[in-house]
Amino acid sequence: MKIVVLGGCAAGPKAAAKAKRMIPDADVEMYTREDVISYSACGLPYFIEGYFDEIEKLIIRTPEDFEEKGIKVRLNSACEAIMPAGKTVVINGEPITFDKLIIAIGARVNLPHIEKINLDGVFKLRSLKDGVDIKEQMKKSKRAVIVGAGYIGIEILEALVKNGIETVVIDETPYVLPIFDDEISELIKNHILENSSELVSFINSDIVTKFEGDKHIKKVITREGLEIDTDMCILSTGVKPNVEIARAAGIAIGETGAIKVNKRMQTNFPDIYACGDCAEKYSFIDQTPVWFALGSIANKEARTAAINACGGDDTFEGVQGSAVTKYFGFTMSMTGYTEREARIRGYDVECATVTKYDKAGYMPDAKNITIKLVVNAKNREIIGAQGIGCGDVDKRINAVVSAIQESMTVDDFLSVDLTYAPPFSTPIDPLVNAGYIIVGKLNKRGNHLN
Amino acid sequence: MKIVVLGGCAAGPKAAAKAKRMIPDADVEMYTREDVISYSACGLPYFIEGYFDEIEKLIIRTPEDFEEKGIKVRLNSACEAIMPAGKTVVINGEPITFDKLIIAIGARVNLPHIEKINLDGVFKLRSLKDGVDIKEQMKKSKRAVIVGAGYIGIEILEALVKNGIETVVIDETPYVLPIFDDEISELIKNHILENSSELVSFINSDIVTKFEGDKHIKKVITREGLEIDTDMCILSTGVKPNVEIARAAGIAIGETGAIKVNKRMQTNFPDIYACGDCAEKYSFIDQTPVWFALGSIANKEARTAAINACGGDDTFEGVQGSAVTKYFGFTMSMTGYTEREARIRGYDVECATVTKYDKAGYMPDAKNITIKLVVNAKNREIIGAQGIGCGDVDKRINAVVSAIQESMTVDDFLSVDLTYAPPFSTPIDPLVNAGYIIVGKLNKRGNHLN
Repeated sequence: MKIVVLGGCAAGPKAAAKAKRMIPDADVEMYTREDVISYSACGLPYFIEGYFDEIEKLIIRTPEDFEEKGIKVRLNSACEAIMPAGKTVVINGEPITFDKLIIAIGARVNLPHIEKINLDGVFKLRSLKDGVDIKEQMKKSKRAVIVGAGYIGIEILEALVKNGIETVVIDETPYVLPIFDDEISELIKNHILENSSELVSFINSDIVTKFEGDKHIKKVITREGLEIDTDMCILSTGVKPNVEIARAAGIAIGETGAIKVNKRMQTNFPDIYACGDCAEKYSFIDQTPVWFALGSIANKEARTAAINACGGDDTFEGVQGSAVTKYFGFTMSMTGYTEREARIRGYDVECATVTKYDKAGYMPDAKNITIKLVVNAKNREIIGAQGIGCGDVDKRINAVVSAIQESMTVDDFLSVDLTYAPPFSTPIDPLVNAGYIIVGKLNKRGNHLN
Repeated sequence: MKIVVLGGCAAGPKAAAKAKRMIPDADVEMYTREDVISYSACGLPYFIEGYFDEIEKLIIRTPEDFEEKGIKVRLNSACEAIMPAGKTVVINGEPITFDKLIIAIGARVNLPHIEKINLDGVFKLRSLKDGVDIKEQMKKSKRAVIVGAGYIGIEILEALVKNGIETVVIDETPYVLPIFDDEISELIKNHILENSSELVSFINSDIVTKFEGDKHIKKVITREGLEIDTDMCILSTGVKPNVEIARAAGIAIGETGAIKVNKRMQTNFPDIYACGDCAEKYSFIDQTPVWFALGSIANKEARTAAINACGGDDTFEGVQGSAVTKYFGFTMSMTGYTEREARIRGYDVECATVTKYDKAGYMPDAKNITIKLVVNAKNREIIGAQGIGCGDVDKRINAVVSAIQESMTVDDFLSVDLTYAPPFSTPIDPLVNAGYIIVGKLNKRGNHLN
């Protein structure tokens, strides 16, 4: 039995380790185009910020760790072609056969069309080297531009602000963290500006068309004619799945653009699996194909792919796009569909947004949090939640995560027996408050569930 | 329409306010034996500790607030008798008729049999006055004894330690917070001793039989012959529901000793409802009668009772005994059945306890948390969770709360799409880690769910 794993960041190492544990006799081989494996790319903004200074801390396991377990690891070994019929991949020009193949080749930064994008001082953030390079440049810089106000953009913003860098964030949408609903994004933007106005400014509804500079970037030029002097620029413009070699091999690509898999993480070729950022996922809410690039999902999918590649039977049921980030003490978290996304998908929704204390009001450290719940008005099931604020937000969203996975109605959610004590919450949690409002609205509509 | 509410702490005011909102024309009258209404008894330990110094902060609404809404409030007005047939209650010797009655008369401290229990310096903690008295006595004291190491006992312990009081905690069980499983209680005890050994000592498996002193307490004597000098003693020996007037009226009492209600919070007399600490509840796990005295439950039950008393139709589905408390930065939280409780109830269970970082290990403030999951081995449903540690614990337990309410299997829980970012969690949350271990154990047993 020979199991070949392509990719060495998150899903690859997880799949390889699990496969070797399941069949200790199997030949397990892991190939990566990078010169390092098993690292936490999600931790890069915190390395840049200075939470820690040793980039090595982001490396979870070394090639030696894997070799010790009997797993062959090859660095700088990008896969050039997959031949499903011959059960062979080509790596560094050499054909390598497999019994089972697990594709975990991840995603890459979605680079925008910007003139002179290759100037020095222009970065993306994906690899460990990117992180080291940005941190070095930051130490010599006074001003920076971030292109893209998504999760990574906000995390880099915190890192730069913490280091005293005057930063301009440019996003093509009118919003900061545009994945949230508009009014929530507006609150996020206001919070950041109120707390960092001396260092941060946002440019929205505009795109970068051109960089200027000889060797090193000096200016960012936008479509609307803005010219921004800068010492560096970070492109946090989202990622896209690496699917080219899969597509060329006849492996089916899903409607989201990622590799199509069933819930066993199997591609259209039964002996070829895909997992992690390169693979498509199913929505827990309506079983439609969705795609997110998240380390937490990658790990779980890799486990399922490995179990099945080894002859077991496991399914990975779905995702909700649960995510969290922070701007210093301010947390932004979501799961499921936003109101906007739900409406685009044709749902009739009822929503409620509440701003309440995160704990008993008499506790001196009580802070306001804002919670938005999104409910499918037709069957009264909760389909989304967003939470922001300086209080305890993300773990509250996790109470909704389980509820959504189990198709809980907002009516049942009113009974949810959340933990309560004055230093932790209010007798009626803000989540349940939002639920009460939605139930009231739905009952007014007259479509009370019987 | 005349709605009479008995009780003025948590459930009573909530029920009265909701009833008046539902039927603005109704006569709503609230009677309480106390001289204050609508206060947060749960906040008393934090008042004593010094989080705030104004006891009034614990008062949520005053009688005037209610009178303004058109709700009649009578203080110092204990109900002496209920006559269901005549739809009348007797209060201060006066008969008062009702169309609908909502009983929300709470619980009281379960006083142990201790000689000279009425000495000065011996306290229970239930009313605002108790809180003020304890705080005053604490300021004059150097040593204290707490009888009972439950939630309230631990909260008072924090308050006393924060104020430099040398404190002995005595519990009849071998454990601290004995409601948790033994090994978790052991970890809690160790944590408290490691962090406060100069001020705290525990005496377990012993009970207090006698107090000594002339007017004021001077000594606590235990069954095992220990004599402890002290300046004060707090009895945190649990509570029991106030049911005497209900029982005398022929209102059915459930097997837990609390007033029996259906899910509409209705007693055996259709026009008489009960809610809050005096009422029995149903377990979400197996629909058996259970009883907990918790403000979060009281509020939700009161809402349901009021809706139904006003002719609406609402049910309160159940509880899980979810709870949380803290000892300074150390959080202790649980929901559902412990392993011990589950085994007593006849469940075949499989459990896993994991100790893991609460966030990415490279974040400098990562801290260990310990999570225990309890699963019904027969149908693989999660039936309990406990979490302790200095990290973010209670809101993690809340992700399990929703799962238990929806009878989620541990297999499905492995897919749960919890939020992830390095400052908040690990790619595979400790909760899911515990789930993996249990699934492994169950599969080894061979009762894999098909």
